[in-house]
Amino acid sequence: MSSASDPDGVDHHLKATDDAVHTDWDKDREPVLTVDSGDVLELECRDSTNGQLGPDATVADLAQLDVDQVHALTGPIAVDGARPGDTLQIDLLDVEHRGWGYTLVLPGEAGFGLLPEEFPEPSLHVWDLEDGMARFVDGIEVPLHPFPGTIGVAPAEPGVHDTNPPRAVGGNLDIKHLTAGSRLFLPTAVEDALFSIGDCHAAQGDGEVCITGIEAPMSVTCRLTVRSDLEVARPQFETSGPFTPTGRDERAFGTTGIGDDLRGAAKDAVRDMIDHLVTERGLSREQAYVLCSAAVDLKLNQVVNAPNWTVSAYLPESVFPDEQP
Amino acid sequence: MSSASDPDGVDHHLKATDDAVHTDWDKDREPVLTVDSGDVLELECRDSTNGQLGPDATVADLAQLDVDQVHALTGPIAVDGARPGDTLQIDLLDVEHRGWGYTLVLPGEAGFGLLPEEFPEPSLHVWDLEDGMARFVDGIEVPLHPFPGTIGVAPAEPGVHDTNPPRAVGGNLDIKHLTAGSRLFLPTAVEDALFSIGDCHAAQGDGEVCITGIEAPMSVTCRLTVRSDLEVARPQFETSGPFTPTGRDERAFGTTGIGDDLRGAAKDAVRDMIDHLVTERGLSREQAYVLCSAAVDLKLNQVVNAPNWTVSAYLPESVFPDEQP
Repeated sequence: MSSASDPDGVDHHLKATDDAVHTDWDKDREPVLTVDSGDVLELECRDSTNGQLGPDATVADLAQLDVDQVHALTGPIAVDGARPGDTLQIDLLDVEHRGWGYTLVLPGEAGFGLLPEEFPEPSLHVWDLEDGMARFVDGIEVPLHPFPGTIGVAPAEPGVHDTNPPRAVGGNLDIKHLTAGSRLFLPTAVEDALFSIGDCHAAQGDGEVCITGIEAPMSVTCRLTVRSDLEVARPQFETSGPFTPTGRDERAFGTTGIGDDLRGAAKDAVRDMIDHLVTERGLSREQAYVLCSAAVDLKLNQVVNAPNWTVSAYLPESVFPDEQP
Repeated sequence: MSSASDPDGVDHHLKATDDAVHTDWDKDREPVLTVDSGDVLELECRDSTNGQLGPDATVADLAQLDVDQVHALTGPIAVDGARPGDTLQIDLLDVEHRGWGYTLVLPGEAGFGLLPEEFPEPSLHVWDLEDGMARFVDGIEVPLHPFPGTIGVAPAEPGVHDTNPPRAVGGNLDIKHLTAGSRLFLPTAVEDALFSIGDCHAAQGDGEVCITGIEAPMSVTCRLTVRSDLEVARPQFETSGPFTPTGRDERAFGTTGIGDDLRGAAKDAVRDMIDHLVTERGLSREQAYVLCSAAVDLKLNQVVNAPNWTVSAYLPESVFPDEQP
């Protein structure tokens, strides 16, 4: 049953209370809310660490971090009438941050991030978010494009599943273009879909190379619609970006990896970008890695010129105070 | 020695005559031209097949295609004073097409393209290029952003080297953003650099998934500068895009591949995009593959959520006649 709409058109408000937050995927978890197809929901989302890090966090706090609490997701939400094989359409209407976020580098036995062996020490940057910008060091500012990094429905396979890898049913997709105004289509795998969302990022580069975007607690307003007329095998979406920080063409600096392994080529491109940021922009290596994760985009230039593919990393120069377009 | 500049500031004009075109990399090939650092060159470039396909080509012509003539490159050009370890800076000043281009799908034992097993038959589309647009079928138009797909210097290793794979010294990079106004830095590996260029594309998607962009003969005007003060291990560049066909944010449709192999994930994303173009836009599968290669961009959304990475394919909806922004 849907409750009566707010004056603002929201049918359901769900707070991120302990009983409405979970940290793994499990199709047998009881839904915390049941909604009708077409309902609009305002969903409070904790940061991905489940509130372990706040705006006053320091790098020392990372030593105590319980990574089993990542990712804190709000849900599951039953969408009445969704059947396996249907598509759940998620219209992202609004994504609101709370003025702060963080990016962390977390070494671990598993090797978090793209270059774990080169960054054995933890690091943390807490960003002020205001006027549409995230403040870094030396006057560097990254324009915001808030989005949920994790957005998915319960997998069909029984048991408990890690939230870290995305799956065909969505989850930790980290598609930076799933901003307000976007529409996502996910294949439903279980009765009533069992939708969950969280792990919001205020900004992120394509690649999310250091393991985190600009992580932040947020509220997401979205409409959930069951599409029995549509079948997708994997996520599909519509978006208007932004495709550059300023939403229009601007100068970028690029580094290029070349090789027969795409992830290896991506590593080379990011290594060269880090060197560039250290040499030409005076950042520390740790700062450079964080800035790459928040603002540098990885593109697959070509995947056909056997045996070597081309992957490039793009740094928008407008993030620097002396390079505004 | 540099010749006297034209009134338009060009120091050297080089036609794509038989003796100025080569189809492999070889550091022992005699240069066809020697220039000074800082000179501006206007270089005529044949299409990548070395003129085997013209504006009246049909798919029947592909059966006779001699792939050993791919890629026809103009050069080599000696840049006086370049030493191994220096950087060659290439400022791309102008890239001019001649009103037509083509995109081909070429099955082969080697398996050309990203989905060779799914496209066993050859296909060809010849595009009219005018008013900044490439004309496809059903009123679909792809905005032009002409660039040289292959741009490089001779590798240090002796002998003859295939032009197909790019290398640290450049070559078949297929970086679609190397448009007029861009600057490329390449590591020089041999005396006088031995620069060559060609394989121009009127437009291309990131990925170039069917094996070709919009291939076309063109003229490229560029300035070559030896940078002894700069050392790069791999190509680096500066560009202002375009990063979307219209140069500003616009609606895109996205498909997503998810898995532990980036190229496999890219294949899934492109398969879903082809299905979308066939089902929703009425294209044939071959037309859809060609359009993906010319206009769909592959992005690495995340490469850190082990064990599954996210790769998405982005189709700009402005290519359709009913979707102009």
